[in-house]
Amino acid sequence: MHLFYTPDIKGSDYELNEEESRHCVKVLRLQANDLVFLIDGRGGFYRARIVHSNPKKTVLSVEEHSTEYGKRNHFLHIAMAPTKNIERFEWFLEKATEIGIDEITPLICERSERREAKTARLNKIITSAVKQSLKAYHPVLNEPVKYKQFINKVEEQKFIAHCMEGDKFSLKQCMIPGGRYTILIGPEGDFTPGELQEAVDCGFRPISLGNSRLRTETAGLEACFEVNFLNR
Amino acid sequence: MHLFYTPDIKGSDYELNEEESRHCVKVLRLQANDLVFLIDGRGGFYRARIVHSNPKKTVLSVEEHSTEYGKRNHFLHIAMAPTKNIERFEWFLEKATEIGIDEITPLICERSERREAKTARLNKIITSAVKQSLKAYHPVLNEPVKYKQFINKVEEQKFIAHCMEGDKFSLKQCMIPGGRYTILIGPEGDFTPGELQEAVDCGFRPISLGNSRLRTETAGLEACFEVNFLNR
Repeated sequence: MHLFYTPDIKGSDYELNEEESRHCVKVLRLQANDLVFLIDGRGGFYRARIVHSNPKKTVLSVEEHSTEYGKRNHFLHIAMAPTKNIERFEWFLEKATEIGIDEITPLICERSERREAKTARLNKIITSAVKQSLKAYHPVLNEPVKYKQFINKVEEQKFIAHCMEGDKFSLKQCMIPGGRYTILIGPEGDFTPGELQEAVDCGFRPISLGNSRLRTETAGLEACFEVNFLNR
Repeated sequence: MHLFYTPDIKGSDYELNEEESRHCVKVLRLQANDLVFLIDGRGGFYRARIVHSNPKKTVLSVEEHSTEYGKRNHFLHIAMAPTKNIERFEWFLEKATEIGIDEITPLICERSERREAKTARLNKIITSAVKQSLKAYHPVLNEPVKYKQFINKVEEQKFIAHCMEGDKFSLKQCMIPGGRYTILIGPEGDFTPGELQEAVDCGFRPISLGNSRLRTETAGLEACFEVNFLNR
């Protein structure tokens, strides 16, 4: 099954850009009349046929189009401090996309050792995971945001996962299924007590993700697992 | 907190081997009277003090010893085909160790592109995850086994996760909490229908790990997550 990500598709014809045309003709060796599938990243899933195969511009004609393909019953936004070793954050993006996530915001916290994230490169990783796992919805990756800015904005069911002492709930206890969730995951070294208090003041509920001591990227994935699992 | 993995500890004194002695003295710069912690991989957690710091042999004296540290209420054995790209399998070992697993067997299946696994190297990855996530139990990594050999041996609650058509349960539906579980995870390209039938004939229940199309290593981690979550 040959899948292309075509966010700019409109109507019933589509022209692959030069890079994808080359891939389609030179690598996959597809020809006129061959069948391909397209996803637009907004829930659209298309069956299309190659009309004109050309390594510079290959033209496709849509035969069938379904909307809200694989739509989930909830919305998950994880705001997480990018890890010092960016590969671990990239790995989180790939796995969270496979399991199911809608929006990701790289958070810059007081103890963040990494204070930037190259979203263009990270988006490519998400896109290949989207294609690999056949998702018609492409998770949105936001530009990095400072912690204080972020927590004052978010709405919905809000949670902060941290490793400090104090009362914590599990998502199972306090999550309302079918909702919109925002979950904060701290950097290596966790949030500061001050950051935790600010989040609580903004209406975030402190949560625990179990008894294991998890790395930042594992905690993010555990949250992703739990939200998807509890919404099945 | 300085943690050492000491599987061969006996009694109240312990001598770090040359590699760890060097690490202790040269890297961590620890000296006589400094506090360190030890795990034996079998549930033993020790508080010890450096008696004699030496880059070739550093001697420790145990001050406190607790057993069954962080013992879980279940036993999870995942038998999974090593991925073509071994990094993905290594990643699974690290994450499964963080989340909670007891035994791993690399499975050689009909469609396995990788038919070997260097367990010495893989065990080092598990050990560092054990230390990083403060686990007193060290997961057991077995040597690779051929599929047919493996499925005829295992006991307990047995499941096979696959992507083919047919009746499947979720772990939530058919798993009995507090038990011993063996879960089979196939290679890229899945098990063959014949392999599936053989497992069913051996008493394995076919399970689904949700609606997402998951890579081999993600499926393994999803199974690990579900078992731990359902046993909380």
